[in-house]
Amino acid sequence: MRIEGKNYIAGTRSSQGDVVVHSIDAATGEKLSYDFYQATPEEVNAAAEAAAAAYPAFRALPAARRAEFLEAIAAEIDALGDDFVAIVCRETALPAARIQGERGRTSNQMRLFAQVLRRGDFHAARIDRALPERQPLPRVDLRQCRIGVGPVAVFGASNFPLAFSTAGGDTAAALAAGCPVVFKAHSGHMATAEGVADAIVRAAGKTGMPAGVFNMIYGNGVGEALVKHPAIQAVGFTGSLKGGRALCDMAAARPQPIPVFAEMSSINPVLILPAALQQRGEQIARELTASVTMGCGQFCTNPGLIVGLRSAEFSAFLEQFAAAMTDQGPQTMLNPGTLRSYEQGLAALHAHPKVRHLAGQPQEGNQARPQLFQADVALLLEGNELLQEEVFGPTTVVVEVADPAELVRALHGLHGQLTATLIAEPADLTAFAAVVPVLEQKAGRLLVNGYPTGVEVCDAMVHGGPYPATSDARGTSVGSLAIDRFLRPVCYQNYPDALLPEALQNANPLGILRLVDGQPSREAL
Amino acid sequence: MRIEGKNYIAGTRSSQGDVVVHSIDAATGEKLSYDFYQATPEEVNAAAEAAAAAYPAFRALPAARRAEFLEAIAAEIDALGDDFVAIVCRETALPAARIQGERGRTSNQMRLFAQVLRRGDFHAARIDRALPERQPLPRVDLRQCRIGVGPVAVFGASNFPLAFSTAGGDTAAALAAGCPVVFKAHSGHMATAEGVADAIVRAAGKTGMPAGVFNMIYGNGVGEALVKHPAIQAVGFTGSLKGGRALCDMAAARPQPIPVFAEMSSINPVLILPAALQQRGEQIARELTASVTMGCGQFCTNPGLIVGLRSAEFSAFLEQFAAAMTDQGPQTMLNPGTLRSYEQGLAALHAHPKVRHLAGQPQEGNQARPQLFQADVALLLEGNELLQEEVFGPTTVVVEVADPAELVRALHGLHGQLTATLIAEPADLTAFAAVVPVLEQKAGRLLVNGYPTGVEVCDAMVHGGPYPATSDARGTSVGSLAIDRFLRPVCYQNYPDALLPEALQNANPLGILRLVDGQPSREAL
Repeated sequence: MRIEGKNYIAGTRSSQGDVVVHSIDAATGEKLSYDFYQATPEEVNAAAEAAAAAYPAFRALPAARRAEFLEAIAAEIDALGDDFVAIVCRETALPAARIQGERGRTSNQMRLFAQVLRRGDFHAARIDRALPERQPLPRVDLRQCRIGVGPVAVFGASNFPLAFSTAGGDTAAALAAGCPVVFKAHSGHMATAEGVADAIVRAAGKTGMPAGVFNMIYGNGVGEALVKHPAIQAVGFTGSLKGGRALCDMAAARPQPIPVFAEMSSINPVLILPAALQQRGEQIARELTASVTMGCGQFCTNPGLIVGLRSAEFSAFLEQFAAAMTDQGPQTMLNPGTLRSYEQGLAALHAHPKVRHLAGQPQEGNQARPQLFQADVALLLEGNELLQEEVFGPTTVVVEVADPAELVRALHGLHGQLTATLIAEPADLTAFAAVVPVLEQKAGRLLVNGYPTGVEVCDAMVHGGPYPATSDARGTSVGSLAIDRFLRPVCYQNYPDALLPEALQNANPLGILRLVDGQPSREAL
Repeated sequence: MRIEGKNYIAGTRSSQGDVVVHSIDAATGEKLSYDFYQATPEEVNAAAEAAAAAYPAFRALPAARRAEFLEAIAAEIDALGDDFVAIVCRETALPAARIQGERGRTSNQMRLFAQVLRRGDFHAARIDRALPERQPLPRVDLRQCRIGVGPVAVFGASNFPLAFSTAGGDTAAALAAGCPVVFKAHSGHMATAEGVADAIVRAAGKTGMPAGVFNMIYGNGVGEALVKHPAIQAVGFTGSLKGGRALCDMAAARPQPIPVFAEMSSINPVLILPAALQQRGEQIARELTASVTMGCGQFCTNPGLIVGLRSAEFSAFLEQFAAAMTDQGPQTMLNPGTLRSYEQGLAALHAHPKVRHLAGQPQEGNQARPQLFQADVALLLEGNELLQEEVFGPTTVVVEVADPAELVRALHGLHGQLTATLIAEPADLTAFAAVVPVLEQKAGRLLVNGYPTGVEVCDAMVHGGPYPATSDARGTSVGSLAIDRFLRPVCYQNYPDALLPEALQNANPLGILRLVDGQPSREAL
């Protein structure tokens, strides 16, 4: 695998700048040998303009052609070999098996969007036929379908160097919607990004896509110019609350504000209910430990808050949980910055008088050690911010509530979440049915007897939720619904059939389900 | 009809403040006798809290119950009698026949959303069933549907005192979505607002809705506190670019940013193509004059830019158009502020050296006189802002382009629009097919051989478009798709059937179409 380190602009490589940046070996901290050329302002501009130039041709392609493109990307990603996996592992300290799994997830995600394009429901076609005889006024023929919003800027995540990065969910959704992409390569895994970008560019070439359909820029601080570029019409982001909010603020302050879909901070509450605790407390302690420490706790859906009702059983569970957490060894984090943030988060918890440390060896060295804390429920009831922001890493905070009423009050104190989980037996679900509507208000995904880590890529998934889990609760960044973020409706009034998009033509050449005069129908008109 | 002038909070009336405001007779400028009590900060807070308190019960109602509520509102609005119509006419200077028509449009809008609730596609139900045998990992059961985002603040428009105001499209869409509303009464028609609010409150009582489902506050400057209130989760607005942008900026700067759907400024270009001009130039001049001056030009979709190709026919058309515009009499605008804005807009056009006045008597007195201007195409090509912002009133600007290539360049110079219209014969549509994709990028609704004034309320309508037409091109404020703005998806993982919303239960008790394992289906599972 050859790493050139040049920016990707309209299918060519560009290195006009003097600033060279490097990624590092996550395990050793050693600087990797590849030079990456930070994009100059002119290159950022050129990348956005390339995407804008590609937009008319790309969005006008039949959906089936874009599906071919996504499938070609999938095949290219599947073909990325052991040398590529080795580079990803060096840049992220993630194990090879995990990267191989993530590679498959990433290509399957592309294939899912290809299916969505062929299924055609993303068109959201609606037809209200003319009613020339209607009184007091006739109705004209009106037809609606959706088009891509325009070029999209995407910022990938550190923790999924494949599935949430260069060819991740945001890129896949944007391309599926007919929106060219300018991707800001994640500074933590730039060599990985190059391997994936090459795969996308090869696929674009093989399937005859316009040159600027995918562009990628390297460097620090280049994101601001990208988000402010007038050609960019939407932004996808996965990362910290601070970073995401900064992009939202920039986008809102543009002469033309644009939507930002930022997936940011979630503590993913897990409620352990009494009957479940009684029946399988030890198993829950084991499973929860695995969920909290899996992948060094570096998941957006990592359970950061465990809530239980005060009882002898819950005390016993806490002991088992603490013991299991103590048994977990240290792990290397994605990069030194992540470890530093983890240590700062731990320090804040250690320092608070209403937080008690329950388990975990003193944090030291260059690996993260699992830690368990217990916090006074008062922190939730009083709206204290300490527990609300995610501590990214293998740690979680237990909160004990006095009774069901206090449980509901504590849940009301939570900010928005990606997930909310009930560990429960049927008797619990009857007794605690009142918490479900509260969780619906707080989270994008509600689980019973599962753990939030592990996000299925499918039609029904919601990886989103109220702020600060995301910047817009109406979107998802995983699953096929993610395409909706990058589409907007267009209505055609009294248009001749030949000028209409295929999705709206009388003959229904795509054979899609459409809402015709208020009824779903696949019929030709 | 009795006007109390007190704020509507949780089903009761409140007048805690000392500031009293008045609406005026639009025709005479005379202050009307009704006192309206400006909401105090405490009352604004109470209104938002009332909406928040109503939200859990209201959103949990079966959709059919919300449909009953909307239909009850429709019946109450239909029953608003001649005394009500007389008040609306006094406050707006709109003729009685127009208000009677708008009353029917407003109630029909409520009924359309009731149909949407019964049809059930707004649930957007998706089910991916468990695949316990899947390799390498099983799939859990995942189901998705949508819920209302929470309390919505709505700011109505001056120009549709019924259909875009208190019980207008935004209110109807929010209530349909299960979102309680806090409505800021428009200061131009507060007595009208009171009559409509009474109708909504009566309907809420008759159908057993929670008390805070609808709230309304009076006064100047009370909107800011409303938009910044933490209970408010989305905003609907129709009005000026300045006002809408101010709300967007406030909402984006909140600790928890919220979406604002603002419908603001559009000049609604109308392209008159050569064959059409040749065949029916005089008729087009007549129709266009009617569209520009109808309702004193006070429509969001008023054609503010007419584009044609330089030719003898176009010159002849301009003469006919100017003559027809000259024949139009003055009309009273919605309020003195609107007239002032109109005069300022005209003054800017008169003052510009590249703009020529073609027709219209000198603007004077307290009525608006129709005016016709011609601007140099350079203003569009150079990105000059003068032509881009709507001049609200009975005026329009003609631009002549040299040839089809210049036409496309001029269209690229336009900002986002609600509508874009082609007046064309079949030969034109063949010759100018290249403009359609450009118009798709610029506007939410594209028309052929119609005039953009007159917005059908139906499933396929899009009354939206790229900025500054609206703040978010992904929404519409007219038609059934408007409900989408106030809904967000929630995913249920491994939930027992009894705890699922009805839309997702195995038996499909609502009988709705759902996406099950990637296929649309009404089957029970």
